[in-house]
Amino acid sequence: MKKILLAGTLAFDEVTTPFGHSGRMMGGSAAYLALAASFFRNHTGIVSVVGYDFGEELLDKFRRRGVDLSGVQRLEKHKSFYWKGYYYENMNRRDTLVTEVNALAYFSPRVPSDFREPDLVVLGNLHPGIQAEILNQFTATPRLVVLDTMNFWMDNARDALMQVIARVDLLMLNEEEARQLTGEYSLVTAARLIRNMGPRYVIIKRGEYGALLFHDEGFFSAPAMPLEHVWDPTGAGDTFAGGFIGHLSEYDKPGVEAIKNAMICGANLASFTVEDFGTKRLENLTKEEINRRLTDFIRLTRYGLQEKVLSGKTYE
Amino acid sequence: MKKILLAGTLAFDEVTTPFGHSGRMMGGSAAYLALAASFFRNHTGIVSVVGYDFGEELLDKFRRRGVDLSGVQRLEKHKSFYWKGYYYENMNRRDTLVTEVNALAYFSPRVPSDFREPDLVVLGNLHPGIQAEILNQFTATPRLVVLDTMNFWMDNARDALMQVIARVDLLMLNEEEARQLTGEYSLVTAARLIRNMGPRYVIIKRGEYGALLFHDEGFFSAPAMPLEHVWDPTGAGDTFAGGFIGHLSEYDKPGVEAIKNAMICGANLASFTVEDFGTKRLENLTKEEINRRLTDFIRLTRYGLQEKVLSGKTYE
Repeated sequence: MKKILLAGTLAFDEVTTPFGHSGRMMGGSAAYLALAASFFRNHTGIVSVVGYDFGEELLDKFRRRGVDLSGVQRLEKHKSFYWKGYYYENMNRRDTLVTEVNALAYFSPRVPSDFREPDLVVLGNLHPGIQAEILNQFTATPRLVVLDTMNFWMDNARDALMQVIARVDLLMLNEEEARQLTGEYSLVTAARLIRNMGPRYVIIKRGEYGALLFHDEGFFSAPAMPLEHVWDPTGAGDTFAGGFIGHLSEYDKPGVEAIKNAMICGANLASFTVEDFGTKRLENLTKEEINRRLTDFIRLTRYGLQEKVLSGKTYE
Repeated sequence: MKKILLAGTLAFDEVTTPFGHSGRMMGGSAAYLALAASFFRNHTGIVSVVGYDFGEELLDKFRRRGVDLSGVQRLEKHKSFYWKGYYYENMNRRDTLVTEVNALAYFSPRVPSDFREPDLVVLGNLHPGIQAEILNQFTATPRLVVLDTMNFWMDNARDALMQVIARVDLLMLNEEEARQLTGEYSLVTAARLIRNMGPRYVIIKRGEYGALLFHDEGFFSAPAMPLEHVWDPTGAGDTFAGGFIGHLSEYDKPGVEAIKNAMICGANLASFTVEDFGTKRLENLTKEEINRRLTDFIRLTRYGLQEKVLSGKTYE
């Protein structure tokens, strides 16, 4: 079984969407990453930090799924990271109302000895210096390291961000972030510039429009599942990354063909997350539901011309 | 060979994009529709109107490709329809600077006798009353009638629009138009409401994000080709529709599987249109270039899991 190391936040979120108010609920990138990855066959560990208020019953949600929490520190004098946000009518825009960094400000990551030689790594959104500290603790080169980041670090820790970007295999970011990082509007140009910074692969997330992969031989487009109701988009990107790395853990080598399939599995899982507040839907999700929607999802992208043209015939 | 009837405008456009100014150039929905459809095997006719200023050398561009112009009227006392627009930095927003309706205000469409029993029809963006008049002149039911429209008619001729929507097989519109027509933000809900209005198929165009098809058994997502440079988006939607109907004309029956393939071919052609001002790129495009990019396009959407899951295996 492949070892996956996931780094990110374990936190409390509170969101208001057009459909209601979530109340205080478990959140954070590591929460979505780990829950999503746990649907696949692998040995997953989390590196994160929580405060005194992050109850054992929350940690049990991960333990029950076989997730190793020996890399999760508890700082007894601090509260957990807290984020409060407000989503506008169409869910494409959100405002941050409150960010309390709390325990995260004192986070000095420690990779447990059992995870110092992971096969696959996702460095979820954290200070790029912290992401680098995690890489420094590895005693062997992982097969694939995925880095997630956000515009905040581009503004506030650009040098550190550029240094960690140069050390990873795959950078995952959204359209606006790709444009901000490179100063280029065209995503094709932006992705080329990012690949010149180091990462062999770039995945640009486009929310309800899916995601684009840029690789050595070209690009690949993974759609998002059209949904009747989007309840709460929080965590969709992290769920995508968690499902992505989870599916990838079932392959011997994380090459480009495996990566394409993993994007589809990540997008499939993300389509569940947005159907309820926070991690609720992921927590009660079954393998059967995942497989059923995966079939729908694949139908969504399948057309006869694929066979015809790739077998060497043109459409003439 | 299938007969295709295309209705729409033949006009002059003038656009400013971040890359320059087009000058006065040939435009109009029927121009893009016919040029795109002409790359496929079929017999295509246009129903439209031009003024005294639309030179024979422009009409020759269509005649040379075998397009029948017996349904194109020339009003000698009027100028042709003229549109002037300005695209903002990211090309997703545009302002209309000038619209001169001119000859179009006096348009009373006449379907030539040779095209009264067409196999396939695209009613490009026109007053819905005019679109209905064209349908009234058919002496047999076409295999597929596609209707394109825009928000202007939703605001200004809603009753007539609803009547013509009820008479067609496929409605093609963009995201904002689908939302405006139905008052629903979710495209899944909007498409269901539109299908209740009459059309069996709905295609929602999403520009650089591709297009979604909603049909009896579900939906299908066609991506757009990621492009390094988008020069001028004018006509992309009409090129999509023209390539769509052109490819469809090569099938016996325009069923859902043919429609999916046709969306890919339409999106492929549209990716060329945006690479230069107006119809320039379509005019000098070769079959070879189309087929080469089609192969790239198909690679963009192809992944191994499609075979595996659709053959009945699940991914675990």
